[in-house]
Amino acid sequence: MSVSSNGHNLGNSKKTKKAMPKQTASSGLLKGRLAQGPHKALQMASVSVTFDKRLAPYDIQGSLAHARMLFEASLISRQEFDDISRGLKILDEKVSKEEFSYDSSLEDVHMNLEKALTDLIGQAGAKLHTARSRNDQVATDERLFLIDNLRIVENNLFDLRLALVNRAKKAGPLPMPGYTHLQRAQPVLVAHHLMAYYQMLTRDRERLLGLESRLKVMPLGSGALAGTGLPIKPRVTASLLGFTSLAPNSLDAVASRDLLMEFLSISAIMAVHLSRLAEDLILWCSQEFNFAALPDNLTTTSSMMPHKKNPDGAELIRGKAGRTIGNLVTLLTVVKGLPMSYNRDLQEDKEPLFDTIDTLNLILPLATAMIESIEFKEENLKKAADDPFMAATDLADHLVQKGVPFRLAHEQVGRLVVLALSKNIALRDLEDSLVLKYCPEAEPGLVKKLSLDNLLAKRDTTPGGTAPAVVSLRIKEALDELDGEKRAKS
Amino acid sequence: MSVSSNGHNLGNSKKTKKAMPKQTASSGLLKGRLAQGPHKALQMASVSVTFDKRLAPYDIQGSLAHARMLFEASLISRQEFDDISRGLKILDEKVSKEEFSYDSSLEDVHMNLEKALTDLIGQAGAKLHTARSRNDQVATDERLFLIDNLRIVENNLFDLRLALVNRAKKAGPLPMPGYTHLQRAQPVLVAHHLMAYYQMLTRDRERLLGLESRLKVMPLGSGALAGTGLPIKPRVTASLLGFTSLAPNSLDAVASRDLLMEFLSISAIMAVHLSRLAEDLILWCSQEFNFAALPDNLTTTSSMMPHKKNPDGAELIRGKAGRTIGNLVTLLTVVKGLPMSYNRDLQEDKEPLFDTIDTLNLILPLATAMIESIEFKEENLKKAADDPFMAATDLADHLVQKGVPFRLAHEQVGRLVVLALSKNIALRDLEDSLVLKYCPEAEPGLVKKLSLDNLLAKRDTTPGGTAPAVVSLRIKEALDELDGEKRAKS
Amino acid sequence: MSVSSNGHNLGNSKKTKKAMPKQTASSGLLKGRLAQGPHKALQMASVSVTFDKRLAPYDIQGSLAHARMLFEASLISRQEFDDISRGLKILDEKVSKEEFSYDSSLEDVHMNLEKALTDLIGQAGAKLHTARSRNDQVATDERLFLIDNLRIVENNLFDLRLALVNRAKKAGPLPMPGYTHLQRAQPVLVAHHLMAYYQMLTRDRERLLGLESRLKVMPLGSGALAGTGLPIKPRVTASLLGFTSLAPNSLDAVASRDLLMEFLSISAIMAVHLSRLAEDLILWCSQEFNFAALPDNLTTTSSMMPHKKNPDGAELIRGKAGRTIGNLVTLLTVVKGLPMSYNRDLQEDKEPLFDTIDTLNLILPLATAMIESIEFKEENLKKAADDPFMAATDLADHLVQKGVPFRLAHEQVGRLVVLALSKNIALRDLEDSLVLKYCPEAEPGLVKKLSLDNLLAKRDTTPGGTAPAVVSLRIKEALDELDGEKRAKS
Amino acid sequence: MSVSSNGHNLGNSKKTKKAMPKQTASSGLLKGRLAQGPHKALQMASVSVTFDKRLAPYDIQGSLAHARMLFEASLISRQEFDDISRGLKILDEKVSKEEFSYDSSLEDVHMNLEKALTDLIGQAGAKLHTARSRNDQVATDERLFLIDNLRIVENNLFDLRLALVNRAKKAGPLPMPGYTHLQRAQPVLVAHHLMAYYQMLTRDRERLLGLESRLKVMPLGSGALAGTGLPIKPRVTASLLGFTSLAPNSLDAVASRDLLMEFLSISAIMAVHLSRLAEDLILWCSQEFNFAALPDNLTTTSSMMPHKKNPDGAELIRGKAGRTIGNLVTLLTVVKGLPMSYNRDLQEDKEPLFDTIDTLNLILPLATAMIESIEFKEENLKKAADDPFMAATDLADHLVQKGVPFRLAHEQVGRLVVLALSKNIALRDLEDSLVLKYCPEAEPGLVKKLSLDNLLAKRDTTPGGTAPAVVSLRIKEALDELDGEKRAKS
Repeated sequence: MSVSSNGHNLGNSKKTKKAMPKQTASSGLLKGRLAQGPHKALQMASVSVTFDKRLAPYDIQGSLAHARMLFEASLISRQEFDDISRGLKILDEKVSKEEFSYDSSLEDVHMNLEKALTDLIGQAGAKLHTARSRNDQVATDERLFLIDNLRIVENNLFDLRLALVNRAKKAGPLPMPGYTHLQRAQPVLVAHHLMAYYQMLTRDRERLLGLESRLKVMPLGSGALAGTGLPIKPRVTASLLGFTSLAPNSLDAVASRDLLMEFLSISAIMAVHLSRLAEDLILWCSQEFNFAALPDNLTTTSSMMPHKKNPDGAELIRGKAGRTIGNLVTLLTVVKGLPMSYNRDLQEDKEPLFDTIDTLNLILPLATAMIESIEFKEENLKKAADDPFMAATDLADHLVQKGVPFRLAHEQVGRLVVLALSKNIALRDLEDSLVLKYCPEAEPGLVKKLSLDNLLAKRDTTPGGTAPAVVSLRIKEALDELDGEKRAKS
Repeated sequence: MSVSSNGHNLGNSKKTKKAMPKQTASSGLLKGRLAQGPHKALQMASVSVTFDKRLAPYDIQGSLAHARMLFEASLISRQEFDDISRGLKILDEKVSKEEFSYDSSLEDVHMNLEKALTDLIGQAGAKLHTARSRNDQVATDERLFLIDNLRIVENNLFDLRLALVNRAKKAGPLPMPGYTHLQRAQPVLVAHHLMAYYQMLTRDRERLLGLESRLKVMPLGSGALAGTGLPIKPRVTASLLGFTSLAPNSLDAVASRDLLMEFLSISAIMAVHLSRLAEDLILWCSQEFNFAALPDNLTTTSSMMPHKKNPDGAELIRGKAGRTIGNLVTLLTVVKGLPMSYNRDLQEDKEPLFDTIDTLNLILPLATAMIESIEFKEENLKKAADDPFMAATDLADHLVQKGVPFRLAHEQVGRLVVLALSKNIALRDLEDSLVLKYCPEAEPGLVKKLSLDNLLAKRDTTPGGTAPAVVSLRIKEALDELDGEKRAKS
Repeated sequence: MSVSSNGHNLGNSKKTKKAMPKQTASSGLLKGRLAQGPHKALQMASVSVTFDKRLAPYDIQGSLAHARMLFEASLISRQEFDDISRGLKILDEKVSKEEFSYDSSLEDVHMNLEKALTDLIGQAGAKLHTARSRNDQVATDERLFLIDNLRIVENNLFDLRLALVNRAKKAGPLPMPGYTHLQRAQPVLVAHHLMAYYQMLTRDRERLLGLESRLKVMPLGSGALAGTGLPIKPRVTASLLGFTSLAPNSLDAVASRDLLMEFLSISAIMAVHLSRLAEDLILWCSQEFNFAALPDNLTTTSSMMPHKKNPDGAELIRGKAGRTIGNLVTLLTVVKGLPMSYNRDLQEDKEPLFDTIDTLNLILPLATAMIESIEFKEENLKKAADDPFMAATDLADHLVQKGVPFRLAHEQVGRLVVLALSKNIALRDLEDSLVLKYCPEAEPGLVKKLSLDNLLAKRDTTPGGTAPAVVSLRIKEALDELDGEKRAKS
Repeated sequence: MSVSSNGHNLGNSKKTKKAMPKQTASSGLLKGRLAQGPHKALQMASVSVTFDKRLAPYDIQGSLAHARMLFEASLISRQEFDDISRGLKILDEKVSKEEFSYDSSLEDVHMNLEKALTDLIGQAGAKLHTARSRNDQVATDERLFLIDNLRIVENNLFDLRLALVNRAKKAGPLPMPGYTHLQRAQPVLVAHHLMAYYQMLTRDRERLLGLESRLKVMPLGSGALAGTGLPIKPRVTASLLGFTSLAPNSLDAVASRDLLMEFLSISAIMAVHLSRLAEDLILWCSQEFNFAALPDNLTTTSSMMPHKKNPDGAELIRGKAGRTIGNLVTLLTVVKGLPMSYNRDLQEDKEPLFDTIDTLNLILPLATAMIESIEFKEENLKKAADDPFMAATDLADHLVQKGVPFRLAHEQVGRLVVLALSKNIALRDLEDSLVLKYCPEAEPGLVKKLSLDNLLAKRDTTPGGTAPAVVSLRIKEALDELDGEKRAKS
């Protein structure tokens, strides 16, 4: 039997090479228990610094607060605290200038920073990890990161909401066909259509706020899983870091990732909202709809077809919704069925988180840019909105007000539509005699009165109706709301 | 060329037959526009009454309120309102007694009920749909349904949270090994472990409350998509139905499903939490862990292996988390990229919603039953918790308090662990001379003092630590919290 | 502390009631080991007969073969075999007539049938489970079920593929605009567009065939997990059931579900293909595209807007793709991370399987019906296909053949397009002098020759081009292929 | 109203900065149609060269073949071909040495390479894109990439399959408990357990082979969507690139991504298989199971608990299955509902593809390393396998052979198990008198004979049974199979 393995693994195609971290005999930080350095295959799978380096500023922030607490709790000396503090500030500057050099053999961002600190300041660095474990450390870093990034996402969301309201305001009473089933149904205002997205995105913001309140609970002090026996003062750390309370259960604090899942859910819903807006933009810019145009700098042309002006931005938004759903699935699937408490599977929580944040920060400004600069083709929209069959509902409603039961009115108008279609004329061009034949209760001259303006203006009996006067009110309220949010920020 | 189709479709295996709805020439409600009844294939795909009949009580509730509003707005007469009201109450009783017979040829629950009403009371029934569309009707039904069902889910969640706290209280100071990486790490209290789940589920409850506030906005009045031109009084309807505000945009009201997506997200996260609890239970009941036993009535035996006592309940909980994730993906995928406003794809929103609710209402009580009746094997737990290597952290912490930098202490203790393992003795059975050789700063006799009780008791320096005194406090707070919730309900 | 639970669980809303299976003291089949009947909560989660009854015909088929094998292996007597055989045939008839009454207290379809058999024929029934476990039994049932249902799906797929080719043939040389980015790009044949879907679906069929070959391996004989020690003759059973080989590993046979996952993957891909076809149909039937119409019996109207003719069928197809993705996620998530071998989580494999099969058997015939009856609006299509800017690529290609580097030609033509747009005239109406100014290498009169027919006819240099002659050949090949498949079936 | 936006977007947190590609006025390749360079937000979302540079070697390979074809078809001159060829080879070397500098302002890998080529060789470079579009180009690149990478994955899979068989062979007749529901059920061989994974992974390989055959169809020549009118010779290109046939439909060729979805499905299933193996390893290495140990270089220790030896490798494998599921969801969701033909959403196909390939190439070698080096603790396994209650099935089987109906035998043995448990003695230590009281048909001395060796040896009546002789045969067959595969490769 001559079968044997001959080293197929890890990049044996000359074309597909991947940089491979050099194996290291020892990281210097975790020696002691294990006789050998890690196997190359394990090391490659273990390395997270390639992505978790993004947590570096938060890790340093957390370490600074932790060090001060250790000093206040007399677990380190004044001198040690000063050394640590000085060292961390140097590292922070390096990190922010992108001059810090991460070493994959040190596995993760925490070890990289601690090693660099010890190299800088000597023995005091080795005291920083007192009363702390990577488990509560990373949970804390993630919360600091997410609180900060929520703000960025929320600001980008604010800009888009504002752009929608401003564009709606500018559109004024411009009408368009409203669609159901992608069939023209009833006329609506362009402003009304835009404000629908404002409402969706405002609910997305509410969800972000709910999450933010849950994030402000500090995991630090939970240790590896059981808390710590050292006399720490966690309230000091929490106060320095802006947390409003302390984790009430150490196992939960290091093992749970529901706040990340919640963020990924909120984000996927938001991205789905944006994908719908994108779909509308793509339709509007098609030659067939021809309702709107995007400026050249928000479209692309084709490598083979120079006449094209493609709404790539909208397509990318629509497409990128897919990855936010995939990222959510990844994390839910990773955590499902894990026993208590921390398991290494949880290393997989960061990439979906980062990718979703980056995706939102790409597609929100892109949507904002398109909304800010989209030009509506007013004549085309007006003409389409005036599609005479879209008056059918109102004709039925008129009959209802004359006492015809709705279902009967619906049936009568349906027959009239078939008649008009067979004659290839508009509903309002039907002669009274024909109208009255089908709808005996109709008042003469009725169909002539079904003008677009009338159809729109009368939809003012609910706060969500599309009548211009009503939509104006909603726009005003929204601007007030945004103004309030803006003032609260500053 | 002789290729032709000869009717393979729809159940041509004699084994796999599916009841097929009879084709119907006309439903009687939507005639007028279309010359023929629907094609069999379309009809089969269109039928939703097989599942949306579950909305019937809410549809009737909504219709009752809508009819009263129509009367108050003088759109129907007192007599018509009385007729409708009487008819709907008859239907409601039939529905609640499961005596209502749904007809698939009438497609959905709304048409079934309206047809039955008209059959019962005649012409007034044909007026009920005045100023209403199926689009705002179904959006309203779904919200009423979900508000009601949130309460049920929340009650089942309450029971499980209470069971966890009660079981934790009963467990008192019983210790167990705490795990990371499924390796014994540090001792914790069984109560602490149970309370970790209490914390997760309490956050799940918070998320449900956030959703509930967003659900109380009434879509009715939004019509098909644009509002209505009839002089309705939506605040009357809202007040009758318990909604606190009116939808601010009609397009959004009929087209959006983010509240359902939010519910499915919250549910998937909750189910993932339960899957972890289930995993713990399965491990504990294995012969290898042997930490706990479930009563006979919560296990099953095998058809082939009569000695088995399987924790099927826990496995089902773990497995059913999968479908809640799948249901979430289904809805996100359905809605992604849809243009405004209502599209028929949205019919697909109900089955995942219903299935997830049913799943939660199965697995929450099942988890409650298991937590209420699980028996912990105290001797085994104590013995396992006393695994002497779990004292290593505390040994290092001790050295830290003696001034040894943490990383050095970590390394020294690591070497000591290797030594003890090689001698096959417990850490605390090492002779002082050996301990001091590796850890010169250790005080003599130190390892002897690393008793389980000491290890546990000193973890009292954070509110989330596992010290018995701390855990007791957390239990008391939780009982107070639950008591408050309970009183708020009654 | 007065908190206590008071039975919120399981249907405490008067509106949302679910039929609850009666608790039963004992099923009579699995007594012995467990002292009590199952807890209500466990029983409700355990019941699978509500859905796995669909396996009944396959379970009976498997039992018949198993019984004959037991007889041939002398494990039961001739008389016992005859009794079992007679009993199973009676049950099979009841099942196929839908007269068999399933009892939820017996949990699953296997127990229901075995109990009914024993009730019918007495003691011999109790011998049927000899050398068999529910674990290998259900794995076998699922394979028999899936092999049978693959055939049904494949037949429905055949019908759609045939409909596409026939419709393409009928469309002949009818042109339409080809799109990228939903922008008109180059003219193509309607037949070419339809044949693109034929190619996708033909690959879907290939994948089904690959799976079928993997399904024909019999799990029976694997017992609960380890095989059996009784002297069975598994080849006899396999031969009776149409399996071509025996499972080579008993643990794998009872624990794996990859063939189901593979089916759900293939199905999700197929449904995604159908969703794209549906999207095209929806666009074509919009007032804006106005390229095609569906017959009345494949559209629906609106409850509020009688003029509407909605492409609900296409929307339902598009929407139902979502659930096939969700079902796939459910099963992948359920199986992920399960230890060997059978775990009760695997009960969750059936509902997604059944639902996806039902979904395909709804949407494939629905798509077939639409393709068979869609009417293309020839004038509109021709006019749109003649959009003069779609000749830009060919103009550039012409310059290329004159020696102009492609990138330069692309740039020259791009400038010409801008010019024509600014003058609001068609590319081919530009005067030669202007054309030559921008494209000095162009031959005079060139733009006039860019007729639609020419553009189409010259795309014959690859087998996938849209030239009418080429598309005709592809249609002929496809018809031959389908004819071959059809003959192989009969 | 003073609300205004003030530039929150894109990294307004000082901590979270992302490198932003510089805006560029023009890429030089696509000018002509669009007046301005792209908006920053669009450009950032459009850039794909940061990830699609991975296609560079395949893009160059495709371009080389394309250029030769253009020459053979007289579309470029000998000199032009020589120039292009020389230039591409220089680029290829730069790429393989990682010396090629990609420029984000050129958007994607195709434009980067073409621009570099033109810079190198002048005008001939501008002819390379003749008769080609980015749409058919990228589809071709992806297939070349995937064919090449399938081989790598398949080799890594081969190594793991071989490691499993070799480890099984080495384990010989070593027994262990077989589990269902994570309860001990029946003894099996460790080798049998390992070979179960061999079977799963061998089916995964079959699926890869099926896909490979579908990949060998060349998209090049399909142009942007409609084929090309230039007189190309696609068979020449195909032959140079190793494709076996030409795409039969140009729209399908540029618009479809089912082969990528198929790959992601196969990969997700494979990763789920690995996640189960990982779960088994994690359980076996726990203190409670204590069945096996991994070498130090395949475990890690803890930053806070120096005694830990964590199976991180197995946890990472288990966790990384999650992302393969997420990646599959991403692509299915992206493609679902897209209209024909190419849409920019499809840019999103690459990252999930690359990530899943990288994941497999991490976790397959990692699993191989663990299987190659795992040490089984023989004494512990033997003792656990000898758990006397696992003989219960065989006791029932014995009674069956004595003529007791299986269900009755099952019940009798179940009672005996309860009795033994209540006496706290093993089944085989029960006195004959007691055995005979419960099982009158048992032969005296029976329970004594239920030795572990007997239990195992008799499971030889099916090819998938766990009897040592049978498992040996399966191992021999597997080694022959692997040997054949190996020879086919070389």
